Amino acid sequence: MSLHDDMIQVGDRAVAASRALAPLSSRRKNAILEAMASELEARREAIFAANRIDLEAAEKAGIPKPMRDRLLLNEKRMDAMIKGIRNVVGLKDPVGAKISRWIRPNGLVIQKVRVPIGVIAIIFESRPNVTADTAVLCFKTSNAVILRGGKEAMESNKAIAKALVEGGARKGLPPDAIQLVTTADRDAIREIVQLVGRVDLVIPRGGEGLIRAVTEQARVPVIKHYKGVCHVYVEASADPEMALRIVENAKCQYPAVCNAAEKLLVDAALAPAFLPRCAAMLQARGVELRGDEASRALVPSMKPATEEDWTTEYNDLILTVKVVSDVAAAIGHINTFGSKHSDAIVTTDESAARRFTDEVDSAAVYVNASTRFTDGGEFGMGAEIGISTEKIHARGPMGLEELTSYKFVVRGEGQIRE
Amino acid sequence: MSLHDDMIQVGDRAVAASRALAPLSSRRKNAILEAMASELEARREAIFAANRIDLEAAEKAGIPKPMRDRLLLNEKRMDAMIKGIRNVVGLKDPVGAKISRWIRPNGLVIQKVRVPIGVIAIIFESRPNVTADTAVLCFKTSNAVILRGGKEAMESNKAIAKALVEGGARKGLPPDAIQLVTTADRDAIREIVQLVGRVDLVIPRGGEGLIRAVTEQARVPVIKHYKGVCHVYVEASADPEMALRIVENAKCQYPAVCNAAEKLLVDAALAPAFLPRCAAMLQARGVELRGDEASRALVPSMKPATEEDWTTEYNDLILTVKVVSDVAAAIGHINTFGSKHSDAIVTTDESAARRFTDEVDSAAVYVNASTRFTDGGEFGMGAEIGISTEKIHARGPMGLEELTSYKFVVRGEGQIRE
Repeated sequence: MSLHDDMIQVGDRAVAASRALAPLSSRRKNAILEAMASELEARREAIFAANRIDLEAAEKAGIPKPMRDRLLLNEKRMDAMIKGIRNVVGLKDPVGAKISRWIRPNGLVIQKVRVPIGVIAIIFESRPNVTADTAVLCFKTSNAVILRGGKEAMESNKAIAKALVEGGARKGLPPDAIQLVTTADRDAIREIVQLVGRVDLVIPRGGEGLIRAVTEQARVPVIKHYKGVCHVYVEASADPEMALRIVENAKCQYPAVCNAAEKLLVDAALAPAFLPRCAAMLQARGVELRGDEASRALVPSMKPATEEDWTTEYNDLILTVKVVSDVAAAIGHINTFGSKHSDAIVTTDESAARRFTDEVDSAAVYVNASTRFTDGGEFGMGAEIGISTEKIHARGPMGLEELTSYKFVVRGEGQIRE
Repeated sequence: MSLHDDMIQVGDRAVAASRALAPLSSRRKNAILEAMASELEARREAIFAANRIDLEAAEKAGIPKPMRDRLLLNEKRMDAMIKGIRNVVGLKDPVGAKISRWIRPNGLVIQKVRVPIGVIAIIFESRPNVTADTAVLCFKTSNAVILRGGKEAMESNKAIAKALVEGGARKGLPPDAIQLVTTADRDAIREIVQLVGRVDLVIPRGGEGLIRAVTEQARVPVIKHYKGVCHVYVEASADPEMALRIVENAKCQYPAVCNAAEKLLVDAALAPAFLPRCAAMLQARGVELRGDEASRALVPSMKPATEEDWTTEYNDLILTVKVVSDVAAAIGHINTFGSKHSDAIVTTDESAARRFTDEVDSAAVYVNASTRFTDGGEFGMGAEIGISTEKIHARGPMGLEELTSYKFVVRGEGQIRE
């Protein structure tokens, strides 16, 4: 059978599973999730053994160390995966909630009810924990899921998916509710993202290359978690101590993630006093600074920033610095060069704060706080499947509610349209 | 300049306009809408003259009459267009509304605030009124809009867009907030729907061919208004008089629209008593009936239904009829062959009603009412830009709220992430 027909069958099985998921109660779903967590626990060693196969193959194939690090499963990562599932058990099930209800003048009672999306495909790269993390969020919201991970993590993903499916089945997980696509054929992604009528949503989880490839090939809706080119803008009235603390945290606390700051904008009025101190602090923390001309006039040790620097997500201890004339210039720069992810202003001026939050067109806009808080857990959503940089459906951290759709349930007593 | 570069410029202008739209108050926007309505009123004759050019060209080109009917602007349609704008003035502006607000244990105050989507592209066919209808809904929600209508309506669309833009400008409509793409080049659609980073959403309004073309070419999000293959299911316990009334209304009251019924499912227990009466009523109304074997055994005058009939949207006085064994069979049929638009059950059995509304996976699910109510106006939304058959972002009638996104505004006092 061709890959195309194979993937159509995967889609058909997912659609059938999504129908079987619809009648499951929250209680039943939680029992299934508990069983999944226990099964992962029980198969710890088998999963590590599978992971070793992937790691050895990766080493032989000369895959670079940072990628092998992402591939690695250790006790700590297994613990986090299992704890993650138990955390999802404790979250409120959004499916079936009545979003609103109204009565029309003709007596029709209209209810807007939260329902699963249906079939969700997750396309990801080398981190095997994504298998469990995303599958359980889709399952909790009664969505069938089609998983396609990177080939370098295939044995790990298989072992994890098998534990979830077999553990869950003991408590009534419907067949094919969680499917891992294991073919070696690289065209599988293209086939999956073109399953119009079978796949309702694709969520790619990975780097820019993966996101681009999925976007270009997809014929079903995609919610992208694109790059995070996050800014901290230190406004003229800012408390310098607070600004130093926020800049340090946003850049240094975990530079590899999408909500870390990549750019620093400093108001011209404050720059002579603030920028040298801030630069010294960052350089002492090992941060490489790149600056525009005005910044370099104040801190000559900065490298000159290139045009490319303003749109680059380094995910590393690098920060590009610009002196701006006022809040309007900061907003203009962020809206032009940013990635609509997370941007912060440090200020004591309420009108500047207001203008910044009104006009910066990003998923999360901060006043006097670090950009590092853009995260489902930090926002109190309990868990997240990603951080959307889309304007459609979901923006920012996507929790359980964002994995649902709705339908209108309309009840009458024989009403017809005149 | 190439078409590609031209369309990039259209996109850039739209992005700039969307920034200029952000600070407009609801009051200002309503004044602009009033000016647009007055200008259409004042230019009535000029618009009719432009429409006559399109109509004459269409006749010369041998375009069939139903398409020329859609193209026609008459006094009644102009009145409806102008009234439509004044209706939008009266609707609540959703932009800026606080959707929710909560405080985290660390003191961060998180607000979820409704914002415009940004830049919306509307791709449509031959009805020139779509120009005004969609432009004003996008404008009311502070979105910049790029309009691309069918070439056969180009002169009419130009005249309408010109009236909106010039009328609105007198009250402060930002330049390029409403752009009509007038190039004769048919590749313009492909270029527009691939403007990643400039266009945030595409809404195609038209037939299956247009929707397919847009979906296949798009690299930006698309919300589809796909076909309506709507069912009425007459369950065993149904009140036959109510069922007759609902079937007649759903099929006959306005057969050309997407929420008209195309299929009738009758419970086997009720079919011998109900179906001959129902068929006689429909045939007296001029409806052509096509049936499965069991239906034709009861009503031999029906044509035999082909496999294709179950998935076809006729938009005409044709109805395909099937006898089903029970509510589960009805649900299975609808979920397999329907288009997830609008489906109704007629029943007096609460458990059947409940099962139907729970399990039928459609945007609007009705109990004892006609499918013809799936409409923004009938649902009390005031206006609609279309009826989404998507599960993502918006489902069913899309009103003003569905033309918005949200952002998180997070306020702190120097919080950093530990």
